[in-house]
This record gives sequence, C-alpha cells and structure tokens, in this order.
Amino acid sequence: MVTNTTVAQAFKDVGVSLNCDMGEGYYRWRLGPDEELFPLIDFANIACGMHAGDHATMLRMVRLAKQHGVGIGAHPGLDDIKGFGRRKLDITPDEVYSLALYQLGALNAMVKAEGMTLSHVKPHGAFYFILRDDEAACRAFMKAHLSLTPNGPPLPYVGLAGTTHEKVCAELGIPFVPEIFIDIDYSAEKTLLSVPMSNPPTVEGIGKKMANILKENTTFDKQGKPLELPETRGYYTVCLHSDMPTALENLRAARKAVDAAKK
Amino acid sequence: MVTNTTVAQAFKDVGVSLNCDMGEGYYRWRLGPDEELFPLIDFANIACGMHAGDHATMLRMVRLAKQHGVGIGAHPGLDDIKGFGRRKLDITPDEVYSLALYQLGALNAMVKAEGMTLSHVKPHGAFYFILRDDEAACRAFMKAHLSLTPNGPPLPYVGLAGTTHEKVCAELGIPFVPEIFIDIDYSAEKTLLSVPMSNPPTVEGIGKKMANILKENTTFDKQGKPLELPETRGYYTVCLHSDMPTALENLRAARKAVDAAKK
Amino acid sequence: MVTNTTVAQAFKDVGVSLNCDMGEGYYRWRLGPDEELFPLIDFANIACGMHAGDHATMLRMVRLAKQHGVGIGAHPGLDDIKGFGRRKLDITPDEVYSLALYQLGALNAMVKAEGMTLSHVKPHGAFYFILRDDEAACRAFMKAHLSLTPNGPPLPYVGLAGTTHEKVCAELGIPFVPEIFIDIDYSAEKTLLSVPMSNPPTVEGIGKKMANILKENTTFDKQGKPLELPETRGYYTVCLHSDMPTALENLRAARKAVDAAKK
Amino acid sequence: MVTNTTVAQAFKDVGVSLNCDMGEGYYRWRLGPDEELFPLIDFANIACGMHAGDHATMLRMVRLAKQHGVGIGAHPGLDDIKGFGRRKLDITPDEVYSLALYQLGALNAMVKAEGMTLSHVKPHGAFYFILRDDEAACRAFMKAHLSLTPNGPPLPYVGLAGTTHEKVCAELGIPFVPEIFIDIDYSAEKTLLSVPMSNPPTVEGIGKKMANILKENTTFDKQGKPLELPETRGYYTVCLHSDMPTALENLRAARKAVDAAKK
Repeated sequence: MVTNTTVAQAFKDVGVSLNCDMGEGYYRWRLGPDEELFPLIDFANIACGMHAGDHATMLRMVRLAKQHGVGIGAHPGLDDIKGFGRRKLDITPDEVYSLALYQLGALNAMVKAEGMTLSHVKPHGAFYFILRDDEAACRAFMKAHLSLTPNGPPLPYVGLAGTTHEKVCAELGIPFVPEIFIDIDYSAEKTLLSVPMSNPPTVEGIGKKMANILKENTTFDKQGKPLELPETRGYYTVCLHSDMPTALENLRAARKAVDAAKK
Repeated sequence: MVTNTTVAQAFKDVGVSLNCDMGEGYYRWRLGPDEELFPLIDFANIACGMHAGDHATMLRMVRLAKQHGVGIGAHPGLDDIKGFGRRKLDITPDEVYSLALYQLGALNAMVKAEGMTLSHVKPHGAFYFILRDDEAACRAFMKAHLSLTPNGPPLPYVGLAGTTHEKVCAELGIPFVPEIFIDIDYSAEKTLLSVPMSNPPTVEGIGKKMANILKENTTFDKQGKPLELPETRGYYTVCLHSDMPTALENLRAARKAVDAAKK
Repeated sequence: MVTNTTVAQAFKDVGVSLNCDMGEGYYRWRLGPDEELFPLIDFANIACGMHAGDHATMLRMVRLAKQHGVGIGAHPGLDDIKGFGRRKLDITPDEVYSLALYQLGALNAMVKAEGMTLSHVKPHGAFYFILRDDEAACRAFMKAHLSLTPNGPPLPYVGLAGTTHEKVCAELGIPFVPEIFIDIDYSAEKTLLSVPMSNPPTVEGIGKKMANILKENTTFDKQGKPLELPETRGYYTVCLHSDMPTALENLRAARKAVDAAKK
Repeated sequence: MVTNTTVAQAFKDVGVSLNCDMGEGYYRWRLGPDEELFPLIDFANIACGMHAGDHATMLRMVRLAKQHGVGIGAHPGLDDIKGFGRRKLDITPDEVYSLALYQLGALNAMVKAEGMTLSHVKPHGAFYFILRDDEAACRAFMKAHLSLTPNGPPLPYVGLAGTTHEKVCAELGIPFVPEIFIDIDYSAEKTLLSVPMSNPPTVEGIGKKMANILKENTTFDKQGKPLELPETRGYYTVCLHSDMPTALENLRAARKAVDAAKK
C-alpha cells in the first residue's frame, strides 16, 4: 500500500502529476514532439536506447528536462528496436537484471554529469507488462533498481497498483508511485491493455477521463463502461504517450483538466 | 609526464601489466576466447555495447573479472556495430560526450551492482585514434570520464604517451597509464597503426617484442626495424587483442615473457 | 505427398543429402566454420541478413558454394539479430510476405549475378516453426516464394513432412523436400523441438542416428527411445547446424555414414 | 552524353520530372509524409533497408507507387542506419557490389511480386557521393546494377551529369538520367553539396529555383549567385528530399512550377 513514508516526496508534492514517455526517437528519426511537450508535463520517462532513444537524444532530453524543471525518470525497455519494445519476448531473470543495469546506469551517468538526479524509474511497454506478470523478472529488475542508490534511499518506482510491481516494491522498501493511463485502455476487469490492444484515444476522451478521475476516482473501460480505480489514493501519476498521433493535444487536454482541478 | 602521484596504484603495483579487450561478442556471436584469456591478463577492457558487447555479455565479463581478480576497465567504442568500431566516423564533441557517458555509465552500474569498482577507462579502435588526433573530442571524452567520480579521485585513463591522450589527462588531473602494443604495428615515426593497417602478428614475434621491451625498452616497427619506446617508464601496460586468430597463444607468449622478467 | 514429379531433380539425384545452415556470421563476427564445412555438404542454406548474415558474408557464401558445387538455398529468418531468429515473435501474414520477399530477393540477386541459380528455400529457426504452426503465415510465405519464379517451375521448399509446410506446398504446386534433423531433438510425438529445447548433441549420437535412419528409417527421440520417421521416403535431406560447438565433427560423422550407405 | 537512345523512355516522356526519396522510415519511426507526397511526384526512390526503410515499409511504398502511377526506383544506401547513410565510410569495391546487389535484389523482388517493374536506380546520400568520387566503387555498383536485367535493356541510372556517374554509365551502356537538386546546394564550382553542408531550403527559394531552371537553365549556388546547369538537356529529373521539415510545401512549390511550365 502507498503511504506517505514510501512515496517519494517529489511525487507527493505534486499530488496528481502528468508523466510522459520522452526521447523515443532513434538517431535520425524523431517520434513525439518532445520540445513542445516538456512545458506540459511534471515527469519525463526518458528512453534509454534499447527500445528507442540513443545517447545523443538522451542527453538532449536530460537538458530539456533540466531547463523545464521536469523530473527525469529512466524508461528502460526490452532490447528490441525493431519492435519498439512492444513485442513480448522471452527473457530470463538474469537478462532482466543486466538489461536494467545497462539502461539505468547509462541514463544515471548522464543525469549526474549534467548536475541532476534521477526522479524515478518506470519500465517501457512489454518490459512493464513482463514485470507485472512475472515475479522473478520483477525481482531481478528491482535488484538492479536498488543498486543505483547504494548509500541512499531507493528511487521511486512508477507502476501498476495492486500488481507484482507494487508487491515487490513493498517487500524491498522501494517507494511505489501508482500510475493511471488515460490514452490506452483497461479491460472491464481493470487489467491495463497494451497500445496495440487499446482503441486509439480521442482528445475529448482524454479530457473527460482526466476530469472524471480527478472528480470521482473513476474512468472508463475499453467498452466505455465506468470503472472504479482503486489506485487513486492521493498520490498518483497519469501517463500519456508521446508517440500518439495527437500527443500534443492529449497532453494539453490532460494538463488543462489537472490545472482546473488544482485551482 | 607519468609520475608516481598520477599513475593509479593498481597499475603501479603491477609495473608491467597485460591488458586485453574482452567481451567483444555480440548477442549470439562470440569473438575472443574470453574464459581462457582471463587467467592470463591483469586488466580487462570490457566492450560496452556500441562497437561490440551487449548487456548480458558485459555482466558475464564483470563476473569473470571478479572471479579471476582482474581489473575491470571500460572500453567504450564508436557507435558502429557493423564496422566493429574500427571505421573512422565523423563525430562532434557533444556526441563524444554523450557516447562516452552512455557506455561508461552502463558498465559502471554493472560493476558497482556486482560489488566491484572500475579500474580504468580505455577507448576502443577508431574512438581511441580520434581522441589521439582531435583535442576537442578528447576533452569532451574526459569531461564524461571525470563525471564518473564526482567525489573521489579520477579513474586512470590508459592511452598513448606523448599524444593528446596524455596531454589532456595531465591538464585535468586524470591519472595516465601509458600503453604499448605488440600485436599491431608502429610506423617508423612511432605512430601506432590500426589493426587493418598492421601486419598480422605471429606468436613468436609477440614473445620476442615483449622480451625486448622488458629488457631494453625497444620494439620493432612495421618494417621490422628497431624502435625505441619512450613511454616505458616503469609503469606501463601492454595491450593484446582478443579477436586475433591466435589471441590465446599471443597472450600466453606475452605472459611467459612478463613472468620470466619479473622472476 | 512427395512424388517424383514434385521433388526437385537435384534433391532427387542425391537421394539422401546433407544440408547445413551457412553464413551465419554478422559483419565482424563469424559463427560456424563455413570454409571447412562446404566440402562436406550437398546443400547450403544461406542466411539472408535478418537473423544473421550480411551482404558481404552472403556473397562470400555464394562464391564458396559455387566453388564446391554445393546447392545454394535461401535461409530467411525472422527480423531479429539480437535473438538470432530463435525467439518467437508476433508477425502478421503481410509482414511474413514482405520479410520473405526482402530476403529471398536479396540472395536471389546475388546468386544470379554470380551466374548461379537458387536450389531451394528453407526458413530459419522460429520462422520455420511459425510457418509450421500458422497456416496463414505459411501461405503468405509461399506467395513470396512463388513470386521468385514467375516464368518457371517453383523452387523446392525444404520443410517438415506431414505439417503445414507440406500441405501448403502441395496445394500451390511447390516441390516439397522433407527434412530430418539429427542434431536437435524430436518429442515422443514426433514434434521437432527447437535448439534451446533440445539436448546438446554428441558426435557419436549423430553418427548413430544417421546410420539408423539410413538403415531402418528410425531415429531416437529426446528421451533416447526409438522413433519411426514417416518422412524418409527415398528423397530427403538431413539438416545439421553450423553453429553447434562440434559442428565440424558432426558433419564429418554424418557424411561418413551417408557415404558408407551409398557404397 | 545523354541521347534519345540512352535515356529511358519513361523519363523522356515526362521531360522534366520530380523525384523524391521515399519510405525513409525505420520500423516504428516515420520520416517524410510519404502518403501526401506520392500525388505530387513522378518517380519515387525507395529506401532499401540499409540507411533507412525496412521490408514492411518498402512493400507499403511499392503499393503506394503503384496506386499513384509513380515510377519505382531503388534507392540503395550505405549500410549505416545510425548515420542515415549520410556519413562517409570506407568501403571496398567488392563491398559496394554486394551491398548494391542486396538492396537492389530485395526491392526488385517486391516490385515484381506486386506486378510492377523498377523504373530506375539512384543511390542515396554518401553512397551517391562515393560513386561520384571513386571510379572503382562506381564500376562495382554498375556491375550489380547490370545484373538486374540479364536478358533485357539495363535500367536507367539517375545521377550527376559530367561526373563518374555518367561516364561509367556511358561506357557500360546504362541509360543515364541527369538529376538536378533544388533543396540542397551547389558550390560556385557546380559541385553538389551534401545535406549537412547545404543551407536549409525555403519554400520560396525552391519555387524560384525550379522556375529559373525551367525558364533559362540556371539555378543559384550556395552563396545565391546564378549558376548555369549544363545538365538540363531536355530530359532531366529534379530531386527533392522527403525528410526536410518543409518537404510537403517544397514539393508543392516545385510541382506548381513544373505544371505551369508545361502548360
């Protein structure tokens, strides 16, 4: 369960925050409108070169986050550029451990070199789902996660409340920040669905979902039926994807709803 | 100039050491006989995933080095798997900086997670030559290098004495360890030649060069003429490549000569 | 069913042939001992750059095959260098079609440019298993396969008898050559198992399996129990992998058994 | 020199045509607005997977070209995804040959499978410049080019008039189509400059250049001074890049100027 002592202070201070996957270009290619999105978000999840991103893009993102006062999270993915980290692949716990260390270490070094510190860790795409569904994989990941802060408190982990994400974090003393999605879908059983399994979002739908969550802690499932979200307990972060065709409009709609609720 | 105060103690203690580029496989592919080489070397330069290597191989190398009591160096390369980091590519200083941070950070995280510390940094192939020949690139690299140890003394840098490598290290207070090569060639002007520009080494030639260096501080140039090596000043490390067809025999010959000289 | 009219003449002439996956290096990296294997085999399956192989390696293989009088088959794989094409990935029929066209076209152009013609097509690893298990994928592949020979008879397809491979070939008039494996395992239910699911082969085991197949049409399953092979009907080809640690010895043992039986 | 007998009929019929580099996405990533550009162009140069493009994108491009009645050209690049084929790399003639065969063969197979034929060949980026500047490389490329049409007339090659491109084509009987660029620059000495060496184009500048070329056979060099273009001799094709930020507007401006001149 999320408590004041385990939620990292930055997320707690914001209350309801917006996080966005950023820097998901790859060398010559760009994906989301990163520069335009930074002013709209609270926390950035920066791709670390395995599902997207590259060293130069990562450095650019770190500098943009610094400039905009946005929290810098690591966004490690499966080692699968060709599938954008969204294909489920077999991976052993030892591979999860080395894959996580590689990406977390790379971004951490950049962030430190630029005079900042990481704000959180949040895995990408199929990696996120694998950690939700496979406890051994999740433990291997968290072993890497913990090794980032040998002398200090662990970094917050952003994940799905009530799943293995939260369970393993609780056991290992890792601050857990629950995450809600509004541009991909939940099943009627409250199971988060992947991007390819979800309906394409509409800007109106996103504004409506965001307002509903803020007002009465409910959202809508894939079929449009109301769905209660147990994980909205004071501190949570709402994820939007920068690679959606309407990413910029989506973020603006969500930002507007959050700002209105905070007034 | 190399002095007792700037050479890192580990290299100083060994005096004449053998270092070898390790972990230069790539996913399914292996290159050198890593397992067999570890017992023969003092320092390993571990590929960091850009010219060769991958997260799982890196972790395997770190564990082998730990098991054999071998120093663990970072061996960052150009971002060029298809050219094995041996093709000269245009790269800006800012790209050098992010490329170095990415690789150094990734390996550093693994080494720390496994309870070890990095012993040194040594760039690979064309990256090494670019830093020798381009001072702006070298400074950008060293900025990344220094950022690895914000609170402690900088890690030693292994490079070519009398070149930009040593000059920039001296200016920035980075311990410099001079390196000699015996399986690739020097020109008559003492310029180190790349692997493709060198003659293929023979096992006999390597034993002979190693013995000569130890005895009288001379080696042979590409044409076989004697060549004085100014950089052998008490503390130096001799590099051998694990991807040579006779890598194992080369290392055995060099090890034998070094051990004989130390008796 | 395989008949004289549908089996390609080259395979028919040999009767029991040995085929081997070749050219599975990747740029700087080599995998099997290709040069030493060519004198021992009848048909080469040449990797086409997606799971292994690259343009220069492919050309080298085509020239070696020509020199040794070895049949040149295309060996297309899943687009997955990092998993060596052995990880099962989701792929749509349209992607199967374009992936097959890309690889078949690339190798076909090289073979023709060097004055040769392709002898057969045989997919690699997980691609082979996907086509066995997914009829829509298999049909999409065969559509690409057929397009290679718009004006002549289709190329033979090497696959698993009694499976979708053979069924779709029969429907589309593609000559089908049944294939038997002796360095990976079958389950007791005669289902071929992948490399990671099989026991590592021994050289003795390979010689024994090959002799048994030739003498009495039986092999052994993963548990070592005798297994009748319905697909040995006069014309068949036996596959060995060039990436096994004992690949050269395996091939020698199989070659010896085949040569002995043909005397 | 370009004559009626050597210029391919399709280019001759159009007179002044517009060609554009298309399909330069890479798996999840898109680059230019391909769908919107097809109605504006006469010939598409389709990336073949080495500098950009992938099998699925290539097939999509072939189908779009077919639908819009646009000529389908092969656009092979250096094997350098990370540098988008715009970094100069060392490459041997034999590697040029295999690299060209690989890409030309892959696209050719797709085009044929979809019931079309290739209209021309035009190398990309640094590959184009290497063939202009290195005659041995150019001959190796043309050997691959010629092998595509063993029984028929060679495909047209689109390149720079008065350079090695044209010279080698003339010697080997390959129809040569001269190409003019209006979104990258020429030096005062009429040497074409690469994208990174050129000034970013403006939409107005493109319309003006196109009109000038059509009216009086002159353009402007990088410094804005008038430059006579010897290669505009009745049949030529004007290249625009789909990866420019204003690609769509650029093409519209050029199209408008060409259509106006043809009235």
